[in-house]
Amino acid sequence: MPGRLSAVTEAEVQLTARATLRIETPGAGLTDITVEARKFVAQLNAGDGALLVFLRHTSASLTIQENADPDVQTDLVAALDRLAPEGAHWVHDTEGPDDMPAHVKAMLNGVSLHVPVIDGALALGTWQGLYVVEHRARPHSREVIFQFIGGRR
Amino acid sequence: MPGRLSAVTEAEVQLTARATLRIETPGAGLTDITVEARKFVAQLNAGDGALLVFLRHTSASLTIQENADPDVQTDLVAALDRLAPEGAHWVHDTEGPDDMPAHVKAMLNGVSLHVPVIDGALALGTWQGLYVVEHRARPHSREVIFQFIGGRR
Amino acid sequence: MPGRLSAVTEAEVQLTARATLRIETPGAGLTDITVEARKFVAQLNAGDGALLVFLRHTSASLTIQENADPDVQTDLVAALDRLAPEGAHWVHDTEGPDDMPAHVKAMLNGVSLHVPVIDGALALGTWQGLYVVEHRARPHSREVIFQFIGGRR
Repeated sequence: MPGRLSAVTEAEVQLTARATLRIETPGAGLTDITVEARKFVAQLNAGDGALLVFLRHTSASLTIQENADPDVQTDLVAALDRLAPEGAHWVHDTEGPDDMPAHVKAMLNGVSLHVPVIDGALALGTWQGLYVVEHRARPHSREVIFQFIGGRR
Repeated sequence: MPGRLSAVTEAEVQLTARATLRIETPGAGLTDITVEARKFVAQLNAGDGALLVFLRHTSASLTIQENADPDVQTDLVAALDRLAPEGAHWVHDTEGPDDMPAHVKAMLNGVSLHVPVIDGALALGTWQGLYVVEHRARPHSREVIFQFIGGRR
Repeated sequence: MPGRLSAVTEAEVQLTARATLRIETPGAGLTDITVEARKFVAQLNAGDGALLVFLRHTSASLTIQENADPDVQTDLVAALDRLAPEGAHWVHDTEGPDDMPAHVKAMLNGVSLHVPVIDGALALGTWQGLYVVEHRARPHSREVIFQFIGGRR
């Protein structure tokens, strides 16, 4: 069944912008950074383009996931624990039992993604939020790089 | 063993363009949207740049996978079912037994990716197709945002 | 807990550039291509922007992971083997027992990502390296497309 493709909208590209977000995670789980991403884009007088998001770590990751029911986050963390359990005879165990599982989870989720910006606003779906996923057990300080590439309004 | 890096080709960046693709999925499985992506790019008089693809949902995802043998798709779906099975004591179960597994699968695959555009054509590998992966059991209507950032021909 | 967002830096976007990297993988495992990515960016007289990386295959993938302890790589490969084992009754088995697991692993990791470029340098975190992950048992020749979109220095 073919999809329905809308008409194309074009604009000039003029601008790249960046800022760094520093967040303190409370240990394993999701931290919502959607508000910070919107704040970054709002400062730009942006038109159309893309928000690029990058996390500078190897034991935490980025995801876009449901922002409505907090139980979803509990289950996402439990699912990752099942996929990369502690005590699974990891060779790399010098940094604690939660370290190597954290690397596996970070690999599965990834550390880079983009969100479209349309008329200066993030084009997330209704139920989509942007999250840093901490995979280490203890709190960590994490650095995210936001970039915008696109046109001005 | 060092890789062999080709000579660099440079071009001016002038253009961002976007369109929305609406597709109806038939339930769990892969829907090929490569033709629609090519159609979008073909309208642009594009030169070099990147096609950015974004899916506005949290229980479906995007993947680039083999387009030759349909058995591969059967196995990919089976693999995801094994990684996030129904009935695994999910806390979030109000939207049906297939809902929370769908969120986990969407997290693992992701909802944003890019494909290089070279001389106005998608630079996919020979066996690569672009797919929306539906993780819910029933048919759903899904929205994809295509964007191009790059130069004109 | 809100994150701390730095001041925004803006620059003009003028340039897209591309090159192809051909690497020979030694069979299942990670091949570091960080040096090649830096070499590509260094040739551009780049300012701010993004390095886009794309792998033109469906049984290998890209990841950004720890570059310090080689044991991490051993464990990442073992983790993927556990998530998509050989002999798990795959329907698609005509290309050998390692082929369908390779497709699953490639889907989970993905074949596209980006790294921010700031003042002409890759903004990878201290422990982050850029890797092609070979999922087939035998050596393969793999093609990576590097692109830069951003401004000049």
